[in-house]
Amino acid sequence: MPANRRSPCPVACTLDIFGDKWTLLVKRDMLLGRTQFTEFSDSPEKIATNILSDRLSKLVEHGLAERHRSDESAGRVSYTLTSKGKSLKPVLRAVANWGLKNFEGTEARLTPK
Amino acid sequence: MPANRRSPCPVACTLDIFGDKWTLLVKRDMLLGRTQFTEFSDSPEKIATNILSDRLSKLVEHGLAERHRSDESAGRVSYTLTSKGKSLKPVLRAVANWGLKNFEGTEARLTPK
Repeated sequence: MPANRRSPCPVACTLDIFGDKWTLLVKRDMLLGRTQFTEFSDSPEKIATNILSDRLSKLVEHGLAERHRSDESAGRVSYTLTSKGKSLKPVLRAVANWGLKNFEGTEARLTPK
Repeated sequence: MPANRRSPCPVACTLDIFGDKWTLLVKRDMLLGRTQFTEFSDSPEKIATNILSDRLSKLVEHGLAERHRSDESAGRVSYTLTSKGKSLKPVLRAVANWGLKNFEGTEARLTPK
């Protein structure tokens, strides 16, 4: 087992990447087609910019998102999902479905399965 | 929208309960049939007892687990899942399935769907 793993449990390994209040919300925004830092920070949960920077770097580091720099607009950076990142959709769906059933008045923006 | 919600998004509301590295692991252990504090703290991830106490209280507070005190053995407390708690199984399955695909050498102990 790699030294940085808590156990051979796939839930524990996944939570080491996504076990926080923000990472899956950034993934949600990417699955909704958002690509720009300002689009993520404009989401209604109002993620702090230092947390957003950290989570985007983590997603890139783990191969879940790619960072692109446009030559035309210097400094303009965008983020897109990799296929590994897109494969998280069933996790987000399960989380969203549970939330829809258990929190009155919540609304999903991801297409339900 | 209740004042303690970050947004009407069901993912955000769910992460407000489970968005950490430990809560879903305690739920995993409960779904595996464990009921005792020492059983949870003996899991291979070695959760600290203060974190475990906090997460168990949070699960009870949110109606996902019930605390039982046995009359026969004073001070002996056990925890069981409520039906709301059991309804988290699809979330754990989705997380476990993603982990199994993306972390080499991981092994699931929950029955796969």
